[in-house]
Amino acid sequence: MKKLLLCSLLSISATGSFANDSLTLKTMSDEIMLRGACYNNLRVLCKQIGHRLSGTPAAAKAVEWGQNALTVAGADKVWLQPVDVPYWIRGKESLKFQFGKDKKIVEVPVLSIGNTVGTDGKILSAPLIMVNSIDEFNALPAEKVKGSIVFFNYRFRQDIINTFDGYGDCGKYRWTAPNMAAAKGAVGTIIRSVSTGLDDAPHTGSMRYADTVKPIPAMAIGNTSADMLEKKMKEGNATAFMQSECRMEGTVRSYNVIGEITGSEYPESIVLVGGHLDSWDVGEGAHDDGAGCVQSIEVIRALKALGIRPKRTVRAVLFMNEENGLKGGLAYGDSAKARNERHILAIETDAGGFSPRGISLDMGESEREQIKAYRNLFLPYGVYDFTQEHGGADISPLRKQGVPAAGLVPDPQRYFDLHHTPNDVFEAVNHRELKLGAVTLTALVYLVSEHGLKSGNVQP
Amino acid sequence: MKKLLLCSLLSISATGSFANDSLTLKTMSDEIMLRGACYNNLRVLCKQIGHRLSGTPAAAKAVEWGQNALTVAGADKVWLQPVDVPYWIRGKESLKFQFGKDKKIVEVPVLSIGNTVGTDGKILSAPLIMVNSIDEFNALPAEKVKGSIVFFNYRFRQDIINTFDGYGDCGKYRWTAPNMAAAKGAVGTIIRSVSTGLDDAPHTGSMRYADTVKPIPAMAIGNTSADMLEKKMKEGNATAFMQSECRMEGTVRSYNVIGEITGSEYPESIVLVGGHLDSWDVGEGAHDDGAGCVQSIEVIRALKALGIRPKRTVRAVLFMNEENGLKGGLAYGDSAKARNERHILAIETDAGGFSPRGISLDMGESEREQIKAYRNLFLPYGVYDFTQEHGGADISPLRKQGVPAAGLVPDPQRYFDLHHTPNDVFEAVNHRELKLGAVTLTALVYLVSEHGLKSGNVQP
Repeated sequence: MKKLLLCSLLSISATGSFANDSLTLKTMSDEIMLRGACYNNLRVLCKQIGHRLSGTPAAAKAVEWGQNALTVAGADKVWLQPVDVPYWIRGKESLKFQFGKDKKIVEVPVLSIGNTVGTDGKILSAPLIMVNSIDEFNALPAEKVKGSIVFFNYRFRQDIINTFDGYGDCGKYRWTAPNMAAAKGAVGTIIRSVSTGLDDAPHTGSMRYADTVKPIPAMAIGNTSADMLEKKMKEGNATAFMQSECRMEGTVRSYNVIGEITGSEYPESIVLVGGHLDSWDVGEGAHDDGAGCVQSIEVIRALKALGIRPKRTVRAVLFMNEENGLKGGLAYGDSAKARNERHILAIETDAGGFSPRGISLDMGESEREQIKAYRNLFLPYGVYDFTQEHGGADISPLRKQGVPAAGLVPDPQRYFDLHHTPNDVFEAVNHRELKLGAVTLTALVYLVSEHGLKSGNVQP
Repeated sequence: MKKLLLCSLLSISATGSFANDSLTLKTMSDEIMLRGACYNNLRVLCKQIGHRLSGTPAAAKAVEWGQNALTVAGADKVWLQPVDVPYWIRGKESLKFQFGKDKKIVEVPVLSIGNTVGTDGKILSAPLIMVNSIDEFNALPAEKVKGSIVFFNYRFRQDIINTFDGYGDCGKYRWTAPNMAAAKGAVGTIIRSVSTGLDDAPHTGSMRYADTVKPIPAMAIGNTSADMLEKKMKEGNATAFMQSECRMEGTVRSYNVIGEITGSEYPESIVLVGGHLDSWDVGEGAHDDGAGCVQSIEVIRALKALGIRPKRTVRAVLFMNEENGLKGGLAYGDSAKARNERHILAIETDAGGFSPRGISLDMGESEREQIKAYRNLFLPYGVYDFTQEHGGADISPLRKQGVPAAGLVPDPQRYFDLHHTPNDVFEAVNHRELKLGAVTLTALVYLVSEHGLKSGNVQP
């Protein structure tokens, strides 16, 4: 990597451009790798608050925490943006199966899928049907499905190298399978978790009922339990017993937390960097997305600590309710539109606090080329991939308004072992990997705030 | 990454070359990511044998394990190559300090540095001197050092992005500081561990006494204890109490474990891939270098499972005694020379079972360019960095004989948190990261065994 740095510097000096930027980026890297606050901030968020689903008292504490952390980081202004969020309550839940002739009962670890209805705490028992895919399910006649609990036994495809592509492939079983099952008269549904893990951790996550179906309870089980169930179902019939207290409790007033450094030359032009402050109601939301929050705060802290006053306004946003409603992202987008705010770039970091590998670019070809021109500056930090083209959920409303969007692309191999499970805790985050992601974000924010991003004819 | 793959395939079809190789590499990736045995092999090595320092009964068991694993993987031939290795014994050890006026005694976690002498189990007490660098030590007059225990308080440089460069910078305190201290009459030495960890784990590792000095005991303490000691030493004087039973117990007969698939067209040409079977006597040697062993075995297994008969001989070598003597690598090199074996490439995997990022190339410019020509084939697997130029310790004797050498370059951020500590255990290895490294190695071995590597005028 020393050689990479050398190589990069050589190629920069060869073109004569960016030489000062290269040195500035190194000072940012040194500041963050040696004195970065993001890892300790994450420790506080995870250990003193823990998980923080929208609407919960913990989420309210996280708002206070975020406000304080941005203030300590040195933001010129820190404020709260009101958001009304859904308040979903899990309550107690259990899942049991009864197999074969000996009628043995087996209980397995389970997590209801987020936003689902429960069984009012009662036991819902029904014959189990297993399908391995949506196609298999579609081939089933409705009379076979009616009154049953459907087990969608679709595996996360470990052969897909980028696990986010695997998530897209497998995630639809969480998002839509409950609706498909309900439409054919099933009384409940169970999915094999959207998980690359070789363990029995169930993964929760979001789903949304279609308006056309009567909501049915939906649960997720871990891979080991799913393997067991698959084996048992091949041997004979089974009955499932679902029990849960899941319910929606209306809406609660919450907030996006925002802090910014006012630009010295173009204060009206905003470069946004953000993650989401809410998490699922298990684990500590460390990678998802405590990491993104503390990295966004770190961008502000590092610029301030180095005495760098950006030409354009740099704004860190900790969005509320990404996980089960996106109300924070929507409220931010609405507000930006109403106030006619000018965002020249919105960056999201919500893919885990792992070693950075790239920056995804969801924007016009001209803007993309402007950012790709900086690629040699990022290479010393292991950031080489500028080919991906998605932004992020929280900034998608801004993107719809035409704002160029970008995302931090960390190494994706470990994320879906932990995602939405009790195992997504502070200890699963490495301090150097987390900081290196913050270095990448700070560098990108700086370059764009310094040099602008020409969008069509508009400048700066 | 889906896009990367597409991009890579496009660029390949544009040049018209390597299209079949791209498809073959994908079948290898699928075989390893879906049905790879390396993760389970690592579990057995770590959990059933555990740490396995050269000369110990555990190392002998690891030899049996390796022989069996290569046989199960389907190697055409498996054999043992005798190596006489040093047998170093740690025994019991402790380190205490007495500070200031209240004479309070504090004991800290400690690991003696490997190969060092002990105190014969007696307490060695002496006044402590702290220096922050070799320069500071060199400035001390010998009379100040004489009779004291020297604490080298040099920090691993967290600002260096490639931690292997940081290791080179900091590692010299482990390798040479005991000799420097002894040369000035110190009676013992303590180092701040060669560690990026934010914890108190002491890191052991190798050192070698210079012929010119009287060996003195050398110990390593974790970063937290070193921070405490640094603070206390600034406040006043301290006395150190070292106690250890470390000793060398002569040499023991051990073995390199070797398995190969005989080449179909050029059986005399060998492509070697290897890691080292021995580990330090703490933890489970999971990343260092159980990972490299099971990845090397996986290369054999994947080729066999896919029915690929390589044109050239593919040889997996599990070297013995990399950690504290390199006797395995030396014996292999001697044997290769004596038998006039023709190695066209030797690849080492000994940098941890993390996500692969590159392949380092220690070879002539012509060979380097031949391998770099394959770079687009590796990009879909996250392997982009071909700029590093080191090989590996075990294959360095072959390199000295002119054999082109290469090394797997995994992500380096976490390695030196764990390296040579009790925390280097199976649970610290991620299954997908480990397998992706094996994919990279299998691809490289295949490409070179299929297409050869022209070295000067020699062909194939």
